[in-house]
Amino acid sequence: MNHAHAAAGENIKSAAAGKSEREGDREGTVSNGIGEKQGGDFSIPGFMFSGISAGIKEGEQRDLALFYSVIPATVAGVFTTNRVKAAPVLLDRVRMRKGRCQAIVANSGNANACTGEKGMRDARAMADSTAKALRIPRQLVLVSSTGVIGRPLPIDKILSRIPRLIGNLSSHTLLDAAEAIMTTDTFPKVKMERCSIGQREIRICGVAKGAGMIMPRMATMLCFVMTDAAIEGASLQKALTDVQELTFNRITVDGDTSTNDTVLVLANGMAKNRVISLKSADYSLFRDRFTAVLHELAKMIIRDGEGATKFIEVRVEGARSEADAKKVALSVANSNLVKTAFFGGDANWGRIAAAIGRSGVAINPNTFDILLNHVPVALGGMGTNGALQKEADQVLKGNTVTLTIRLHQGNAHTSIFTCDLSTDYVKINAHYRS
Amino acid sequence: MNHAHAAAGENIKSAAAGKSEREGDREGTVSNGIGEKQGGDFSIPGFMFSGISAGIKEGEQRDLALFYSVIPATVAGVFTTNRVKAAPVLLDRVRMRKGRCQAIVANSGNANACTGEKGMRDARAMADSTAKALRIPRQLVLVSSTGVIGRPLPIDKILSRIPRLIGNLSSHTLLDAAEAIMTTDTFPKVKMERCSIGQREIRICGVAKGAGMIMPRMATMLCFVMTDAAIEGASLQKALTDVQELTFNRITVDGDTSTNDTVLVLANGMAKNRVISLKSADYSLFRDRFTAVLHELAKMIIRDGEGATKFIEVRVEGARSEADAKKVALSVANSNLVKTAFFGGDANWGRIAAAIGRSGVAINPNTFDILLNHVPVALGGMGTNGALQKEADQVLKGNTVTLTIRLHQGNAHTSIFTCDLSTDYVKINAHYRS
Repeated sequence: MNHAHAAAGENIKSAAAGKSEREGDREGTVSNGIGEKQGGDFSIPGFMFSGISAGIKEGEQRDLALFYSVIPATVAGVFTTNRVKAAPVLLDRVRMRKGRCQAIVANSGNANACTGEKGMRDARAMADSTAKALRIPRQLVLVSSTGVIGRPLPIDKILSRIPRLIGNLSSHTLLDAAEAIMTTDTFPKVKMERCSIGQREIRICGVAKGAGMIMPRMATMLCFVMTDAAIEGASLQKALTDVQELTFNRITVDGDTSTNDTVLVLANGMAKNRVISLKSADYSLFRDRFTAVLHELAKMIIRDGEGATKFIEVRVEGARSEADAKKVALSVANSNLVKTAFFGGDANWGRIAAAIGRSGVAINPNTFDILLNHVPVALGGMGTNGALQKEADQVLKGNTVTLTIRLHQGNAHTSIFTCDLSTDYVKINAHYRS
Repeated sequence: MNHAHAAAGENIKSAAAGKSEREGDREGTVSNGIGEKQGGDFSIPGFMFSGISAGIKEGEQRDLALFYSVIPATVAGVFTTNRVKAAPVLLDRVRMRKGRCQAIVANSGNANACTGEKGMRDARAMADSTAKALRIPRQLVLVSSTGVIGRPLPIDKILSRIPRLIGNLSSHTLLDAAEAIMTTDTFPKVKMERCSIGQREIRICGVAKGAGMIMPRMATMLCFVMTDAAIEGASLQKALTDVQELTFNRITVDGDTSTNDTVLVLANGMAKNRVISLKSADYSLFRDRFTAVLHELAKMIIRDGEGATKFIEVRVEGARSEADAKKVALSVANSNLVKTAFFGGDANWGRIAAAIGRSGVAINPNTFDILLNHVPVALGGMGTNGALQKEADQVLKGNTVTLTIRLHQGNAHTSIFTCDLSTDYVKINAHYRS
């Protein structure tokens, strides 16, 4: 470990945590890591959680999680676009079709991907044993795995621990479950939002794990969202599809898309609100809070990016279309040369210009501007004066940077969130099997 | 500097040099770096070279180069596809139209990119002053720059050194010129090939610089090829366009495409061979040797990739089309997770499988094989046994690895050449302005 970099890494996480605190004291708003406020109220009516060690990972770390609703819930899901899909993804896509789910059993430490027929049998066994122990129909149990690809799941270990997993179920142990799905994550990621639908308060709470192999086209990671809202199934799926495009599909750590990416949303209706549907005015209320949950989780994933020392928003403005804006932003956000310059604290905007130019978008090389926070380092495709360049170097001493690119070609804009590329990223990924 | 990694980096370069030596003692075959055989015969009839320090880079390093033909030569060129093009690229594209060139003046240490109208004036001044001093028409002088983007070219320094640059011209100083175009390169890159056209021996000699910002769609870097062959202009351009697609467009260091990439070929006809044209049988002879030159230079660029400790060929076989094969190979070759695993000497084929799956090609997840050299680590989309996995870890102790991916979907295949991603890559790019 390079301690200097590790310390810098801690900084952005602390800063991020600090920000959450400042942003508001809504009950249930949690810090993203670092231990503050982790005892907050993460209960959601009708949901119970458990997170234990099953010996899949080294030592006594938690690696087996259960998310359970006391009654069957409406379910929506999105999955990795990778052609190589892990066994649990293949199983869930089929099981989800009936639109109902009551439990999700998930493990870290092993992805159960590229494991063939045995992998499918193991995923089924993991789900079905959980169903049996919970005495619910097996069609109501979904399963997720994350970790090393290509090794057989230690299914016997897992099956032997399921009674213990269920025995530990509680309304107040969401953080245990959040911890049990972590791989190289350094803190559990949880976000709670509330709103009123008619006279009823509803809660929406999400947990996620991320860290590496994070890239749009269904980003990330695993994310499970639980709500006590009553919402019609198609509306829930529509909300998820739309909102994940604006949140998880707007982040990138290293441009890699995993075989296991899964987002599942369970809505158990225990709030007894009038049922939300696409046509009702309540839909936008719900979608709004749901977006806030996914947006915050997406940002936590970037803040916890492997080896990251800086949180970077790449904002592209003045594009001809949103698609163009996204292409340019991703080209910059995925450039190793740009990301290493940010790590080095060097306002090397020439690399940003090169990444803009190779994005595939017909940008005008004589009109683009580049700003670091509010400091223009290039205007009209050319560098600004030395004083501004020095000011920009100062901006990069901070651990949160907004890089704005103005194309002056239209009115469309978008943002992509990413982090820098550090020596620690290489060390983590050279020596950890993920 | 991490000395362990630096030493490993040296290893692949030494090994590469050793390989060149073993491969044959064709006169004019040179080592790629490390000092052996650098005094070889790099003369090409009618060409002269010069490489001096003009104070653009720090210290007394060479940073100004001249490649000169005693008579006007036929010229062909390909340039970066980046929308942000450096001033010399914009100038050369116009000047090349007449198909003749007699001199190329090039500098390192400054890219003269994103420099606006002043950049265009500086590029023109650099070329025109060289023309004037050489007493040749200015339309016959092309110009190239490489280095930091976005800083004004120190044109006064350059202009004041042009007399000295010309004074140093010699038939035997190609290595000086090759050195003067280097940026983060650790050795000059030169490759000579010969063949007979009719009764005449012709020579084809190329120099290149690379190291970072290396990615297909016109890879790299600067490359200047000189030959005494007599060849018709359109045929030379066709040969270059085709061959660069098979060589420079098959390598990637970091997925970044620069603003300055330029390959120029000068053919001065001093060999007095019967003129080569597309229709003549001599064309394929010429193209063959020309390919060998560009292929070797492309490989040298990868061996000298920033921080590289391993030379990796990603070979995709059994694809439905060559385009598919290339997509899959690039997805793997540009994956930071794959590249860091190679650096760590970890045969983590799960990351390779994930990169295959996210390539955008409709691969079959149940049929692909992955081999490291000749060791199968995955067959039919699943991992092989532990003994083979251990053997694969041994393969990664070497500094040259062939990663073969068999898709079993068709008969098309291709190879992409790349290197690993090391902590030194990050250090070099965090602290060097390029």
